[in-house]
Amino acid sequence: MNSFGRVFRVSLAGESHGPAIAVIVDGCAPGIPLAVEDFAADLERRRGGQPGTTARREDDVPKIVSGVYNGRTTGAPILAVVHNRDARPEAYAELIHTPRPGHADWTAWRKYGGFNDPRGGGHFSGRLTAALVMAGVVAKKLIDPVKVDAHIVEIGGSADYAALLEQARAEGDSLGGIVECRASGVPAGLGEPFFDSLESLISHAVFAVPAVKGIEFGAGFAAARMRGSSVNDPILDAAGKTATNHSGGINGGISNGNDVVFRVAIKPTSSIGRPQRTVDLRTGEPAEIRVGGRHDACIALRAPVVIEAVTAIVLADAQRTGFQPRP
Amino acid sequence: MNSFGRVFRVSLAGESHGPAIAVIVDGCAPGIPLAVEDFAADLERRRGGQPGTTARREDDVPKIVSGVYNGRTTGAPILAVVHNRDARPEAYAELIHTPRPGHADWTAWRKYGGFNDPRGGGHFSGRLTAALVMAGVVAKKLIDPVKVDAHIVEIGGSADYAALLEQARAEGDSLGGIVECRASGVPAGLGEPFFDSLESLISHAVFAVPAVKGIEFGAGFAAARMRGSSVNDPILDAAGKTATNHSGGINGGISNGNDVVFRVAIKPTSSIGRPQRTVDLRTGEPAEIRVGGRHDACIALRAPVVIEAVTAIVLADAQRTGFQPRP
Amino acid sequence: MNSFGRVFRVSLAGESHGPAIAVIVDGCAPGIPLAVEDFAADLERRRGGQPGTTARREDDVPKIVSGVYNGRTTGAPILAVVHNRDARPEAYAELIHTPRPGHADWTAWRKYGGFNDPRGGGHFSGRLTAALVMAGVVAKKLIDPVKVDAHIVEIGGSADYAALLEQARAEGDSLGGIVECRASGVPAGLGEPFFDSLESLISHAVFAVPAVKGIEFGAGFAAARMRGSSVNDPILDAAGKTATNHSGGINGGISNGNDVVFRVAIKPTSSIGRPQRTVDLRTGEPAEIRVGGRHDACIALRAPVVIEAVTAIVLADAQRTGFQPRP
Amino acid sequence: MNSFGRVFRVSLAGESHGPAIAVIVDGCAPGIPLAVEDFAADLERRRGGQPGTTARREDDVPKIVSGVYNGRTTGAPILAVVHNRDARPEAYAELIHTPRPGHADWTAWRKYGGFNDPRGGGHFSGRLTAALVMAGVVAKKLIDPVKVDAHIVEIGGSADYAALLEQARAEGDSLGGIVECRASGVPAGLGEPFFDSLESLISHAVFAVPAVKGIEFGAGFAAARMRGSSVNDPILDAAGKTATNHSGGINGGISNGNDVVFRVAIKPTSSIGRPQRTVDLRTGEPAEIRVGGRHDACIALRAPVVIEAVTAIVLADAQRTGFQPRP
Repeated sequence: MNSFGRVFRVSLAGESHGPAIAVIVDGCAPGIPLAVEDFAADLERRRGGQPGTTARREDDVPKIVSGVYNGRTTGAPILAVVHNRDARPEAYAELIHTPRPGHADWTAWRKYGGFNDPRGGGHFSGRLTAALVMAGVVAKKLIDPVKVDAHIVEIGGSADYAALLEQARAEGDSLGGIVECRASGVPAGLGEPFFDSLESLISHAVFAVPAVKGIEFGAGFAAARMRGSSVNDPILDAAGKTATNHSGGINGGISNGNDVVFRVAIKPTSSIGRPQRTVDLRTGEPAEIRVGGRHDACIALRAPVVIEAVTAIVLADAQRTGFQPRP
Repeated sequence: MNSFGRVFRVSLAGESHGPAIAVIVDGCAPGIPLAVEDFAADLERRRGGQPGTTARREDDVPKIVSGVYNGRTTGAPILAVVHNRDARPEAYAELIHTPRPGHADWTAWRKYGGFNDPRGGGHFSGRLTAALVMAGVVAKKLIDPVKVDAHIVEIGGSADYAALLEQARAEGDSLGGIVECRASGVPAGLGEPFFDSLESLISHAVFAVPAVKGIEFGAGFAAARMRGSSVNDPILDAAGKTATNHSGGINGGISNGNDVVFRVAIKPTSSIGRPQRTVDLRTGEPAEIRVGGRHDACIALRAPVVIEAVTAIVLADAQRTGFQPRP
Repeated sequence: MNSFGRVFRVSLAGESHGPAIAVIVDGCAPGIPLAVEDFAADLERRRGGQPGTTARREDDVPKIVSGVYNGRTTGAPILAVVHNRDARPEAYAELIHTPRPGHADWTAWRKYGGFNDPRGGGHFSGRLTAALVMAGVVAKKLIDPVKVDAHIVEIGGSADYAALLEQARAEGDSLGGIVECRASGVPAGLGEPFFDSLESLISHAVFAVPAVKGIEFGAGFAAARMRGSSVNDPILDAAGKTATNHSGGINGGISNGNDVVFRVAIKPTSSIGRPQRTVDLRTGEPAEIRVGGRHDACIALRAPVVIEAVTAIVLADAQRTGFQPRP
Repeated sequence: MNSFGRVFRVSLAGESHGPAIAVIVDGCAPGIPLAVEDFAADLERRRGGQPGTTARREDDVPKIVSGVYNGRTTGAPILAVVHNRDARPEAYAELIHTPRPGHADWTAWRKYGGFNDPRGGGHFSGRLTAALVMAGVVAKKLIDPVKVDAHIVEIGGSADYAALLEQARAEGDSLGGIVECRASGVPAGLGEPFFDSLESLISHAVFAVPAVKGIEFGAGFAAARMRGSSVNDPILDAAGKTATNHSGGINGGISNGNDVVFRVAIKPTSSIGRPQRTVDLRTGEPAEIRVGGRHDACIALRAPVVIEAVTAIVLADAQRTGFQPRP
C-alpha cells in the first residue's frame, strides 16, 4: 500500500505524467508553522538540474490544499500537491511493449494486468519522491530539534566522482552510489523490540525509495567481519554515551541516544541510452531497446534529501508511540 | 510492537528466563496439517549445541494450545508455546546494574524505566527467535511450493571459518557472519510500489531478528559501484525470466518471478568473556564487566533458520494481499 | 486518523471552506472503468437542494488526479478532488469563540489547541462526506454484483414527515432520522470472529459519518426484548438461507449469505437558528448564539448515500482479506 | 483478525473446549503492579453460576506467562492464560452437522471449509470473553483514574426481570438484555474526526463481543426522534461541561470531558433447549435440533464486565495516540 505510519501517516498518490503528485500527511500536531515556501529548499535538492541529473524542468511549486489555516497546521490531514508541468508522455510511448530492464515496467504490467499507466513509469516513477520530500518537510518540523542529514558518500565506487559521471553520461550509461544518513539528537527510547525495531521501521521506509538495494546500520556489513570485542561500543556514562558507534545508535531495536547512522546503497539509474536486451510483450520475441527521454546518469545524486525525508517520517511516528523513557 | 503482518499476523511474547516463549499466528488458512512434530526440524536448527553456539540445553518441545483440531489448522489463531526448562537466571544477576556493551541492556532499562526483566536479556533475548521459528514453520506451509532457504555465506569474513571460531572462543571473543537467503518459486506480483515494497516488508521483518545490522537485495551494495548497463538484468521472455539477477528478484518493489535473494549482516554476539567498559547504573561510575554464563561465540550460526522464518512470514502475508497478477 | 481499511484503504482530507475536499483510494483493483461522470449520481444524492437541506450550492464536479489511465483504474492510488466553489467563510466568523452546542466546535478547539480551522466546522464539516461518497462510488464497483441500498425509514419519528420538516424549519429547528441500509448478494464468509467482526467493521465505518449516534443489525435493540426461540433464524438449507433475518445477515461476526441489514440513528442537525446556551471561550462567560448561515433542517435526508458509501468501503476491504469460503 | 489496537494491542487465542484461552496484551506501560489476583474480581463477574447463567464450572485462575517481573509490568507483551478444566466436548458432538440457528456454527463451517473446531463453538465461544476480560483488567489500570462501569438496564424488556428469567429457563428458552456503560473521568480530546471517532473505536470493540446486535451513544436512537433544540447539549463553561449529555460525551468523534455513555443490545442466547429448525449439512435435508449441554438462559447477565473490558481497551489505546489537548 501507499501509506506508512501508525499515528503519523503519509499516503502517496500521483503519476509521472499525470496531472500531479500528491501526499496526505495525517497525524501532524497542530500549531506548527507551515507555508509552501517551507518546501522549496528540500524540493530544490531533489529536483533535476545538477550535472548527472535529468534535464526535466519542473517548477515544483507545491500547493497546500488542506490542513493549514492562518499559516499553521490545524491537526487535520495536510494535502500537498505538486502539479506536473513538463510532462512529455510521448517520449515513452515506444517503451510500453518493451519493458526496460531493471525498471518496474515488467512487474507493473504483470501485477496490474496491463492497466498500469506506463508513461514515464507512471506511479512507479522516481518523481513520486517529491511527495516523500514534502511529507519529510513536515516531519522534520515535528522532530525538531532532532536533525537528519544525508549526503553522498560515494558515486561509482569513488568519493571523487566528477570524471566518472561525465564519462558514464558520455557513454549513455549510469552510475550508482552510497548515501549516508545521520540523525542527531535522537532521544533514547525510540523503537521497539522485534518487529518494530527502529532498524525495521527505518529500513521499511528507506526501501520505499526507488533504486535502494541495501541498507546497513552503524558498522553494518563490516561488523559481520569484526570480533565482538571490537564491535561492542563501550558505554561511557549512565546517559548511554558510547565511545564508538558501531551499533549506529540502536541496540535491541531501540535508540540509545547516540547518533542514528546508516548507509544506503542506490543502484544505477535503470533507464540508460545504451542498447539493452528485453522482450516484446506483444509477441514474446526478444527485442533491443535504447531508452531516450531525459534521465539521470546517477539518481543517487538526488537521493539524500529523499532518504532524509523517510527517516524523518519514521522518527515523527516513533516519537508519538511507545512509552516515554524516564528522564 | 511485537506483532507483524496485515492479514497473516504474528504476535510474540515471552522472556529468556520466564516460564515460556509463545507466539500467536493469526490468519492461517484452515485445513493445513500441523503437529508439534512439524516444528522439530526448524527448532533444532535454531537450538544451541553446535560448535560455536551456546551450551544452554532446551528441549524446545512446543505445545500447540489453540488453532488446530484433528491435526489440521482451523482458521482460528494458533497459539504455540515453548516452555523454558533450563533457565539459570542467577547467572545474570550481576549484570543488572552494569549493562553489557552492544546489548539491549541499557536501552531496555532506559525505555522501560528499569522495570524490564533483565534476566538473560528478558524479552530482548535471542531465545525469542524460537517464537519466530515456530511462526515460520506455519508460514512455510502456507507458501508452499515456494521454498525459502538460508545459509551461512561467511563467518568472521571467511567461508572457511572453523579455525577462526575455535580461536575466538578460546579468547573469550565472538564472531559475526553473513547469511544469504533465497526464496525460489515466488510468483511475480508480490509487493507494492513504495511503502509496502517487497524489500520494505522483508527488511522490516529481518531487522526484527536480534543482531542483524544490514541487508542487501541482489547485487546490493555492489550494485552501487556498478554501471547501469551491467546491473540491469536483461529480460529473456514474457514471463519475466532474466539473464542475471542483480535485482534480487524484485523490481519496483514487486517480485518479478525470479528468485528473491538477499544477504543479511549479523554482528558478533555481544555477550563475550573478555573485559569490557561499561557504567554502573547505580553510581554512574565507570565499570568493567566480563560476561559469564553460556553464550554463542557466533550467533550467526543459528540465524539462517530464523531468517527463513521471517521471510516466509512476509511471503505468507504478501500473497494474501494485493491483486493477483494475471495468469 | 482519517484513513480506513487494511488493503482497500480510504484517506480523507479537506475543509468545508478551504480550497477542496479530497480522498485517496488505495488498493483498488486495476482495469475497472472509472470516469468523473460515475461520481455524479451519488454526489447529487448527497448534495443540498431538496426541501430540508442546505441552500449551499456546490457544483461538486470531481477531478480524478491519479490512478486512472485510458478510462480505467490502474491499480495505483486514486486521488479524487472536489473543489469548494461556494465557500462563505465570513458567515461563521462570529462562531469561532462561541462553540455551537452539539457540534464539534468545542472538542476541535480543545483537542487542537485552538489551531483548528473553524470556518464552517473546518475538517469536521459534513461536507467531508463528499469524499466518503466518492470513495464509495469506487467501492461499489469493486463489490459488484453486491448491491448496497440505504433509504430513510423515518424522520422526526415518522415515516410521513413532510409537514414535520416544514414546521421544524419554520421554527428554526432541526430533525433527526433513521436510515436503513441493506447489502444484498453479500457472499457468506466475510468478517472475522471477534475484533474484525463484520458488525465491528461496518459500525466503525458508519460512526465515521457525522451525526450518527446509533446502529443496530437485524432485529437490533428489539432482539434484546425477544426470546431466543423467536430471534434465532431457522436455517432452511445448506447454503445458509434463513426463514427470518433477525441476525441482519451476520452470525459470529461473519456474513451468512442472507442480506446484511442495519439501521442507523442520525441526530438532528446541530446548527439551528434558535437561540442556544454556550460559553464565550475568550471570557469563560455564558453566551447565547443563534446559528445563521445555510443549514440543513434535517441532515439525515442526505445521509443514505453516505451510509451506502462506507458500507461499500467495508465490503470492498473485507472481500480482499480473509479466506475464501469453500464453493 | 483477532487483534485490536494501534499501540495498546490485544490479541486473542483459544477455544471453548481446547486446552486454554489466552490473550497477549502488547503496549502496556512498564511499572504497573499486576498479579493473578487482580484478575479474580472481573473474571468472577464474567463466570457462570448466577441464576440464569450456565452451570459450567471453571476455576478461571489465570497464569501470567510473560510481561510481569517482580510484580510489575515490564513493558514487554503480557501473555495471560486461563486453562479449560471443565470441558465436555462430547456434549456437542451431535451438533457438528446440524448448525444451531442464531449461532456461528454455520458461518464458521462455511468460512473455514469445515475445519473449524466445532466443540462448544470452538473459537467462537463466549468463553473467549474471558480473554477480553483479562485484557480489560490491564487496560483499566492504564486508564486510571478513568472509571468504566457497565450494568444491566433491562432483561427481556424489563428492569425487574427475575420472574421472566425463571419462566424462560423453565421453558427451555432464553432472553436478551440491554447493558449501559459509563466511562467517567475521560479527558477531553480522545478520538479523531471521521474514521477513528471515539464512537467508531468503541463500537468496533463492542461488536467484538458475541451476541451484541446494537449500540447507541447518549440519546442514541431516541435522538433521531427529537429536535435539535432538545438534543443539543448546552455548554456551561469553558471546560466543556454540558447541562445535558445527549451526545454521550462525544462530539465530532472526540470526547468532550463529560461522561462517555452508551447502551448495548444483547440478543438472547442462541443455544436453547426448545426444538429449532435447521439443516443437516451432510444431506442438505431439514432437521430439528434441541440444544443440550449447559447454557445461559441470558448471556446478557454476564456481559457488563466484558463491555467494560473492551471499553477500557479502547480508552487505553486512544490515550496513547492523538495529540494531547491543551491543559
